[in-house]
Amino acid sequence: MNSGLRIAFQGEAGAYSEEAALALYPGAQPCPCESFDAVFAGVESGLYDQGVVPVENSLAGSIHRNYDLLLQHKLYIIAEHTLRISHCLIAHPGVSLSEITQVYSHPQGLAQCEQSLARLGEVQRIAAHDTAGSVRLVRDEGWRHAAAIASKHAAQIYGMQVLIEQFEDDKSNYTRFIAIAREPVQPTGEAKTAIAFAGINQPGLLFRCLSAFALRDIDLCKIESRPMRGVPWEYIFFVEFAGSISEERCRRALGHLEEMATFVRVLGSFPRARPTENGQ
Amino acid sequence: MNSGLRIAFQGEAGAYSEEAALALYPGAQPCPCESFDAVFAGVESGLYDQGVVPVENSLAGSIHRNYDLLLQHKLYIIAEHTLRISHCLIAHPGVSLSEITQVYSHPQGLAQCEQSLARLGEVQRIAAHDTAGSVRLVRDEGWRHAAAIASKHAAQIYGMQVLIEQFEDDKSNYTRFIAIAREPVQPTGEAKTAIAFAGINQPGLLFRCLSAFALRDIDLCKIESRPMRGVPWEYIFFVEFAGSISEERCRRALGHLEEMATFVRVLGSFPRARPTENGQ
Repeated sequence: MNSGLRIAFQGEAGAYSEEAALALYPGAQPCPCESFDAVFAGVESGLYDQGVVPVENSLAGSIHRNYDLLLQHKLYIIAEHTLRISHCLIAHPGVSLSEITQVYSHPQGLAQCEQSLARLGEVQRIAAHDTAGSVRLVRDEGWRHAAAIASKHAAQIYGMQVLIEQFEDDKSNYTRFIAIAREPVQPTGEAKTAIAFAGINQPGLLFRCLSAFALRDIDLCKIESRPMRGVPWEYIFFVEFAGSISEERCRRALGHLEEMATFVRVLGSFPRARPTENGQ
Repeated sequence: MNSGLRIAFQGEAGAYSEEAALALYPGAQPCPCESFDAVFAGVESGLYDQGVVPVENSLAGSIHRNYDLLLQHKLYIIAEHTLRISHCLIAHPGVSLSEITQVYSHPQGLAQCEQSLARLGEVQRIAAHDTAGSVRLVRDEGWRHAAAIASKHAAQIYGMQVLIEQFEDDKSNYTRFIAIAREPVQPTGEAKTAIAFAGINQPGLLFRCLSAFALRDIDLCKIESRPMRGVPWEYIFFVEFAGSISEERCRRALGHLEEMATFVRVLGSFPRARPTENGQ
């Protein structure tokens, strides 16, 4: 199933994005990329079949870079997946907690485990480029005084020991990922559609634009105003609504919206994935 | 002017937040704090008179943590300031560009200078906890092979040399800061008001809520739906509109909104600061 499908993700083997890619496409081949830009460019050029990138974290908010990249590339959202982010404290096999004097992770990983780290007593927190990469670093350097904060998956990949599971302070830590591809899909069943639009800034613009959905009882799932790149404080709106553009009333709502906005782009319709407690 | 006023900010001396604090309150005493939490808690307890924290970057989007903290503390937004973020490449005096083999900064600082860094050739990028702190690190360690990415202000504070100014890839890089205090202000002249609200999720909820403003020709400046902490994918809306709660029509709009929403909180009215090209 999905074997041979090349899915680009940002980060190293063991990254949360890789986990999301495999949850969406079991058996596919995850392809690590240095940057989000490389994921988008690689999917657009055909180097990869699809890409999986994070767009929203329940604690930290939207990952705007990926919304910008969606606008800069001719790609479509074809799926979503919500992953429960559960961090582990990871060290070399045989190392005990009392030996740890340094902890490496991405600054977000360190921040999300602040209280757990405080309970360890005097440990130095060292910022690294990513979570999985910090596990690899501790392993490659052979450091027995150091631990990394990353996923269980990363511990397994690098043959390292999980010292503490569920090391994050706030258990309601979820990240929503999207899959992007060169061709759109037409989801059957419960669907969501993501769009971006902009208009001439005047009182009531957004209200009039949203009437296109409200008057048709179309439920909004997310809305965000976002400064336009290169035009400080002119805003573009990102909206997700329940329904697929294969539905007549959604197409009519978009037609109505186009009358009021100066720019409308459909980023894709995709099956609605309802998150469950463990995020799978 | 403002002397003796204690303004808390997150980061070390030389941080962009300190610069914003001094732009808002020339002559005040900036007080560095380890975390945003410490800024909010310190202002609430009376340890500091005010706090200055970033809420939005024109490239990276909202800093959600600070919106969450606004909801968790009984504090008010009393001012805003937009700062043009212009990074410098900073090293020890007398060091030349060709000697640099390592560059330290916050991951965001490194990311915002990616193309400029690529032009330097083979340099190792090392993530640090903050921009100003990376200047201090390079100075304290006496490293002549290393540079840091931070503000000109940070270079001055630590007596270091600016090798390259305007090192950022995208010049339209602005961060909006807010000042928070225990007591609200009643701005005269052009003002903005920030609110948060939530309601029972059903089609048209947001549309109905926004009617309170649209029907009174009140201009929206910003809108964002944000997952509620502890309740994955239930949303709270953050809205800023033109006007002050000292105005009758704004008070009426809020009264109208309260009829439709289950939760409304005014985060503060404050003078509207129009950003200029240099962000001052």
